[in-house]
Amino acid sequence: MPFSLPDVQRPDRSILNSLQQRLDSLTKPPGSLGRLEELACNVGLMRGTTELTVRRRAIFTFAADHGVSRAGVSAYPREVTAQMVLNFMAGGAAINVLCRHYGIENVVVDVGVDYDFPELAGLILKKVARGTNNFHESSAMTEQQAIQSLEIGMDLARGHDIVGTGDMGIGNTTSSAAILAVLAGLAVEEAVGRGTGIDDDRLRYKTKFIQESLERRRPDPNNALDVLAKVGGFEIGAIAGLILGASSRKIPVVVDGFISGAGAMIATQLVPACRNYLFFSHMSRERGHRRMLEYFDARPILDLDMCLGEGTGAAIAIDLIAAAVRIYNEMATFESASVSRA
Amino acid sequence: MPFSLPDVQRPDRSILNSLQQRLDSLTKPPGSLGRLEELACNVGLMRGTTELTVRRRAIFTFAADHGVSRAGVSAYPREVTAQMVLNFMAGGAAINVLCRHYGIENVVVDVGVDYDFPELAGLILKKVARGTNNFHESSAMTEQQAIQSLEIGMDLARGHDIVGTGDMGIGNTTSSAAILAVLAGLAVEEAVGRGTGIDDDRLRYKTKFIQESLERRRPDPNNALDVLAKVGGFEIGAIAGLILGASSRKIPVVVDGFISGAGAMIATQLVPACRNYLFFSHMSRERGHRRMLEYFDARPILDLDMCLGEGTGAAIAIDLIAAAVRIYNEMATFESASVSRA
Repeated sequence: MPFSLPDVQRPDRSILNSLQQRLDSLTKPPGSLGRLEELACNVGLMRGTTELTVRRRAIFTFAADHGVSRAGVSAYPREVTAQMVLNFMAGGAAINVLCRHYGIENVVVDVGVDYDFPELAGLILKKVARGTNNFHESSAMTEQQAIQSLEIGMDLARGHDIVGTGDMGIGNTTSSAAILAVLAGLAVEEAVGRGTGIDDDRLRYKTKFIQESLERRRPDPNNALDVLAKVGGFEIGAIAGLILGASSRKIPVVVDGFISGAGAMIATQLVPACRNYLFFSHMSRERGHRRMLEYFDARPILDLDMCLGEGTGAAIAIDLIAAAVRIYNEMATFESASVSRA
Repeated sequence: MPFSLPDVQRPDRSILNSLQQRLDSLTKPPGSLGRLEELACNVGLMRGTTELTVRRRAIFTFAADHGVSRAGVSAYPREVTAQMVLNFMAGGAAINVLCRHYGIENVVVDVGVDYDFPELAGLILKKVARGTNNFHESSAMTEQQAIQSLEIGMDLARGHDIVGTGDMGIGNTTSSAAILAVLAGLAVEEAVGRGTGIDDDRLRYKTKFIQESLERRRPDPNNALDVLAKVGGFEIGAIAGLILGASSRKIPVVVDGFISGAGAMIATQLVPACRNYLFFSHMSRERGHRRMLEYFDARPILDLDMCLGEGTGAAIAIDLIAAAVRIYNEMATFESASVSRA
């Protein structure tokens, strides 16, 4: 394929001792800050340094439409994708509120929305096409489009200390469930969920829809590019690309929920070393997400029953990582504060 | 007893509909922000209003010494309590870093540290005594001192939108485990844990120490004041008092971990309606904490393997509640943003 995957280095674990020594010198019982200590350590490992900072941080919210949104798999009409992008631009969506609250830049990228946006500050226009094809009838996209969506994402994380992933795309839990089923080798029933809140009837329909599509498309579980092309989405490809690019530059990536996780599956199947640069922000309420986290052997940072996407879980987790890094940087040591040790 | 408990109103649940309607009008699938929505609703119920704000927020960190800290139950020497209070004043402790990060005021209250502090900005001097008695030998404090510690806490939350609890006191997991065992009717083995990190031998000693103390003191499980006096601590009494006072003024209280939970047990045994004003911030790694949360039938907001105290878990949770309130206040509605509904 006319596409070269980036080189991703495995972290140098020799600095782990120094990171842990610093944490153990701080005025608290060793390990008593639990996962905050683990988060700070992992930032250091990913960045390859004991000098931690998470100042330059952004969430990339990738938006695209899906052919399957015309097939009755979602509770919401297709036009909501474009409407929500305009809502992002107006600052009215959940991701906007959270990014304001935490001081995180939110960058919205149109990788395939079925709408012509004007030029707007904070909106990157990189449309691959006006939505994918309905993968029940044909491949969602061409292999060339799959590569294009990856390349869009690969270029974005530059000079950041940490980035988060996000998505907007009516129909994209259908695509993500298909990716999960194929790459994790699950029955569709285990991978599929209620998305934006469909009822039992529609859940049965969605399940059957994905089963039939996988029988027809036969994506190759050993070829993530084939899976992306046959049943993926442009925003999922771009999320995978963001992970590939960020990992190659040693930039930690905070993965949001179910759709972002599908992107992470694509990325790590293409370049397994990417796994070392991922934080999994939260346990989504979307049913298949537990199995997805098991696939990554990941314990999520938060479990707040959320299932919105957009990068909302990533935003909360990025700020918790920032707090952990401040703990690492700003706490006094037993020596500096003249506190007796155990 | 020469002490009147405050009047705590049960929340008016009739506004729940209005709170939920507002949340469901926002541009997201209903319920998709999970516990963030629940947190916002609960703030409204506690405050008795649909106009939510959490601007004025503070964590009260109560410090006191314990007679049992001279009995070999802790990994750290007794003087660490005073040293850590001075560390709080210098801004070098974990609670300082987190409060700076989240913009939360931290108020430290000396309710019984075995050290004479100078007057310091941000330190409230309300010493009941220079530490409790060793409850293996006699009651930890007199009933009058127990009342005094409650009254110190009751006065502090005034004009706040939300407050958090915190503690500092070498030996206080021993006292808290005793309170948990008595009030929840547990065997001491189920209530006790490693505190700041004691080894197996010392854990066995600590368990036996508490068992013998409870046999000797025989605190009355139906009389929280008796339990507080016989096996409690001044900071635990003050935390209970903070909860009583805040609840009577409809101010939500975010309970930190194991020691704060022991204070909450005292408060809710005295005035059960207080339970309606409590958020439980996190699942501590301290072993008895799971049983304590079960006692309250509470699902904690976070589970980060922390066990430091000081109010560190409460700080993180207060900011998450603040984020939830901003979601409630600042998100666009389907109507205002012209987004199609399901």
